Amino acid sequence: MKQINIKALAQELNLSVSTISKALRDSYEISDETKHRVLELAAKLNYTPNPYASSLRGKKSRNIAIVIPEVADSFFSQAINGIESVAKGKGYHVLICLTHENYEHEQAILKEFQSGRVDGVLMSVSSETASGGHIQELIAKEVPVVFFDRALNGVAAARIVTDDFQSGYNATAHLIEQGCRNIAFLGVSSQLSISNDRMAGYRKAMEEKGLPFREVYCSSSPEDNHTLVTDLLRQHGRPDGILASVEKLATSVYQACAELQLSMPADVKLVCFSNLGIAAMLYPSLTTVTQPAFEMGKAAAATLLKLLEKKHTDPSGLDMVIPSELIRRGSSL
Amino acid sequence: MKQINIKALAQELNLSVSTISKALRDSYEISDETKHRVLELAAKLNYTPNPYASSLRGKKSRNIAIVIPEVADSFFSQAINGIESVAKGKGYHVLICLTHENYEHEQAILKEFQSGRVDGVLMSVSSETASGGHIQELIAKEVPVVFFDRALNGVAAARIVTDDFQSGYNATAHLIEQGCRNIAFLGVSSQLSISNDRMAGYRKAMEEKGLPFREVYCSSSPEDNHTLVTDLLRQHGRPDGILASVEKLATSVYQACAELQLSMPADVKLVCFSNLGIAAMLYPSLTTVTQPAFEMGKAAAATLLKLLEKKHTDPSGLDMVIPSELIRRGSSL
Repeated sequence: MKQINIKALAQELNLSVSTISKALRDSYEISDETKHRVLELAAKLNYTPNPYASSLRGKKSRNIAIVIPEVADSFFSQAINGIESVAKGKGYHVLICLTHENYEHEQAILKEFQSGRVDGVLMSVSSETASGGHIQELIAKEVPVVFFDRALNGVAAARIVTDDFQSGYNATAHLIEQGCRNIAFLGVSSQLSISNDRMAGYRKAMEEKGLPFREVYCSSSPEDNHTLVTDLLRQHGRPDGILASVEKLATSVYQACAELQLSMPADVKLVCFSNLGIAAMLYPSLTTVTQPAFEMGKAAAATLLKLLEKKHTDPSGLDMVIPSELIRRGSSL
Repeated sequence: MKQINIKALAQELNLSVSTISKALRDSYEISDETKHRVLELAAKLNYTPNPYASSLRGKKSRNIAIVIPEVADSFFSQAINGIESVAKGKGYHVLICLTHENYEHEQAILKEFQSGRVDGVLMSVSSETASGGHIQELIAKEVPVVFFDRALNGVAAARIVTDDFQSGYNATAHLIEQGCRNIAFLGVSSQLSISNDRMAGYRKAMEEKGLPFREVYCSSSPEDNHTLVTDLLRQHGRPDGILASVEKLATSVYQACAELQLSMPADVKLVCFSNLGIAAMLYPSLTTVTQPAFEMGKAAAATLLKLLEKKHTDPSGLDMVIPSELIRRGSSL
């Protein structure tokens, strides 16, 4: 099928290209009768406005992008649903791009966006991202960016986050209450805001009770994490409690306990940051810090739309912190 | 920051726009020295080629899209990883768009793609999709489409699927072997290829043993599914075995059993189509039909690239069927 353009519509109706263009834009200069004829033919011939041509004329793409490390994580899948529930209502298309926790991929994706493919970006940075030049470049090209969950310090962009410090503190205090004295924190990356904030809460709770810290950083490979957790639980003076900072680490802890014949919660107690719907059906059921994923997605999308509609140009007053919830279950009780 | 275009580069270097353009395209007409000067300044000023302008000149976007119902499903998150592992290596950007099992959303997304935003599409249709006009229109505009997992009959596009019929048959035969006589099949939609093929396998296995069928269709709402499964398990003559055709239904069955104080596997045995990594840590551990999700994603992407590189124009010889695996665990043993 041939691509139908404005010129073809103009020839068919014996009107000028400019008249067709104005009719399609619902201009007051064109009569209703002409508009009707143009729209009827456009529908009949399956005319689609060329977004590249429109963009060159300065129009917006009506696309917003979600840039996240992965989708195999219940937090992100629920946050995406929150974002789409807002964006769809306002007529935006949502594109999801994955960095796979890789800084170069993240740079390449944002570079692509500099040229107007998307109007704005909602983003959770990769665990490798230590500097924000690529994000600042995008903002400088007037593509607004809103961070959700994982924000990068030093970049002037709105951030919709949860109370990571407080959640880390509460989860640790709960493990201490349950009798743990030797609690290990499983972090993702020393560069990542959420990992550091959750760890700072853990350290404060441990410090208050005069208990020693133990922080272990995991990788993005499930095999490496399995080895790491198995080594941790096999060693002399193994932890009696674990606070895992992301969902995927729960599987490693359950597997390692099964293989080493350690019983949860008798030998090791576990709390994990996770939005897994099936957490209550695990054996034992998993104590979670459950984030307000859907609400964070909604709030992030609403904030980006404010910036796109130029109701705000300064992102500094737009930050939000939405609290998480500690759900106590069998793995720590 | 102002958007740097070719004209600005030309002014700065005191060269013509045409020379700059040729230098950037590595034309043989331009000397290496000039090319070097142009590229150096382009890098310094952070020049990005305008993709809209390029596309108008007939170039490709180097984007491919994945159009799927949702990401909160381990099959899709693993398939995405398979797709990206192939696409990234060939220099393609991958965009993910979600239909949320909604036919109108799916139509709107594909309509957008008609105008050249993406070079090709990998797609698993929504559970509401009964006709393929929107897909055929896209193919007619020379945007190739490859189905993976959920294909639509009547559309001439390559399809990378698993052996749904055989898997449904094997899972049912396993439940019968374990003593079940009254097995219910939980389907997604009477329009959906995978649901119908899995059901046909279930019916054949039941028929061979002279056992009665019972098919129940679930919805996309977790609350509705919970009610439906609870009603099914509460009634007189409740099933002693369940074959669930998608991952999210497992949660409903576990919850309903807990609430009705039915014991798995003693009262009800369960097999679920699922790629959930944590299936072995559920209580009881979950017997799954595990699909070759990563491999299907890789094969689908490789097939689309063949079509994009015009090594094939006829999709008819490109179909693939990759077998799934029945993993027997506590919920059915």
